[in-house]
Amino acid sequence: MISNFDELIRLAKSKGKKRIAIAAADDEAVLIACKMAMDQGLIIPILIGNQNKIKKICAHIGMDISQFEIIPQDDPVACSRIAVRYIKEGKADLLMKGLVSTAPLLQAVLNKDSGIRKNPLLSHIALFQTSYYHKIIGVTDAAMNIAPCLEDKISIIKNAIEVFQKIGILKPKIAILCPIESVNEKIESTLHAAILSTMYKRGQIMNCVIDGPLALDNAISKEAAFHKGIQSDVSGEVDLLVTSDLNSGNVLYKSLIFMGGAKAAAVIVGASVPIVLTSRADSEESKLHSIALATILS
Amino acid sequence: MISNFDELIRLAKSKGKKRIAIAAADDEAVLIACKMAMDQGLIIPILIGNQNKIKKICAHIGMDISQFEIIPQDDPVACSRIAVRYIKEGKADLLMKGLVSTAPLLQAVLNKDSGIRKNPLLSHIALFQTSYYHKIIGVTDAAMNIAPCLEDKISIIKNAIEVFQKIGILKPKIAILCPIESVNEKIESTLHAAILSTMYKRGQIMNCVIDGPLALDNAISKEAAFHKGIQSDVSGEVDLLVTSDLNSGNVLYKSLIFMGGAKAAAVIVGASVPIVLTSRADSEESKLHSIALATILS
Repeated sequence: MISNFDELIRLAKSKGKKRIAIAAADDEAVLIACKMAMDQGLIIPILIGNQNKIKKICAHIGMDISQFEIIPQDDPVACSRIAVRYIKEGKADLLMKGLVSTAPLLQAVLNKDSGIRKNPLLSHIALFQTSYYHKIIGVTDAAMNIAPCLEDKISIIKNAIEVFQKIGILKPKIAILCPIESVNEKIESTLHAAILSTMYKRGQIMNCVIDGPLALDNAISKEAAFHKGIQSDVSGEVDLLVTSDLNSGNVLYKSLIFMGGAKAAAVIVGASVPIVLTSRADSEESKLHSIALATILS
Repeated sequence: MISNFDELIRLAKSKGKKRIAIAAADDEAVLIACKMAMDQGLIIPILIGNQNKIKKICAHIGMDISQFEIIPQDDPVACSRIAVRYIKEGKADLLMKGLVSTAPLLQAVLNKDSGIRKNPLLSHIALFQTSYYHKIIGVTDAAMNIAPCLEDKISIIKNAIEVFQKIGILKPKIAILCPIESVNEKIESTLHAAILSTMYKRGQIMNCVIDGPLALDNAISKEAAFHKGIQSDVSGEVDLLVTSDLNSGNVLYKSLIFMGGAKAAAVIVGASVPIVLTSRADSEESKLHSIALATILS
């Protein structure tokens, strides 16, 4: 069980080096993150992309190209397909997005014949280290599923439970986040929350503790819940916040980072291997943490 | 123009004492906030509620009852009607919720005959002072409108512009918050954002600058916007974040306070006077700031 990102890095190191296939690796930000993860002994990169550009960037950032494989391919879409094939053939342990749009990469991942889908749904999960909470806290889904239906939310929760188990939290405490703590027939997120927490009580969702509807304050604070008259096994000890949709998930993710000083690690899960999808807005540290998380999950 | 909450209090003081009608005032938390605002010279309270309880609480917290009017009324719903009548008859300048549910208070406010509705829609607006941004930043709507349609959002924006003008920001910069910075046909918030920013460009929404879709990071940071290739007059100087719905507004509000250390002041606007609707979860300081904001707006 990890309680901060130093421990995340340590846990990742203990797993040994993982082979990471990077689709369209000819991007400086991606290669810097890759170098940081190599320096920490976390990964062996397999760089798929424009060979000349990769070599040039590597020279520029002081990355020794004799240490890894470069697969020359100028077309980013073809890069995605090659990277996924490497995973499927057991030649790589995890996947990372380089200078290719998310859509073609995910198309390659989800392809019925050549893809690597494992669970019913791919979803995004982010872990945060923040000075406003006493342990690592997760948020799902901040970047992938636009308006998940109830069935989708069950898949998102199950994907997340797999993640927590791999970082040593065998029964994560899960809050279904809503604007209020009670059921309001006009607010769909509160209906989903009520159903999901009942499904947990009936043993239909296992290996976790679920409560909801909970608002953010009473999810993270037992006192706040107490003031509202709520008795909850999740309040104050929550490991995972399940947001109602992409609008709320994304704004929470960005608020924690940009208006709360939190550090983040994020991956896409639900395929046979974790996928690192860092964005330009992420700090280098955040990219390193995301790669470390992915190596633990792979 | 105010840039922090000390200036908000100073501006409120400069407006002279306002008469605040408190519906169901027999609540310790409400009376403590009321006393703080009196001590700052902001208000003259008109307390409507259970007289014995009010006197008992006032004695307990050291509030001199000779300084204000108490209107005895044990029924909270009747208290709400009386408070609204005081506003309508010009005997009070602003309204505050005490120990009564929000629904009956708003019913009294919105009653076609005896109510005090002014604008097409009531909406919630919160102002924040945070160490992660260089000036006061507003969020609307975090507590009132569940799933505002496009027309509702126009009303919410117009309500908010009135608020900013009263605190000296004549043309507030407004970001329509979305999970991404471009239009995605499947994400309604991005469609609303595109339409609202076009309406601004065509002069259909005046006295402001609107841009969107913008994600939180590129709303508050010019650099983040630049990295995404976005040129925006709003980025980095935004005064108001318009959230897509209650789910996202509420999670942003609570994240800023409970996971970002921000201070908040919030009111309901759109009636003939501002309404202070503090909740038990609010700090005493936040309640004082909300009353101060309301006195400025009244």
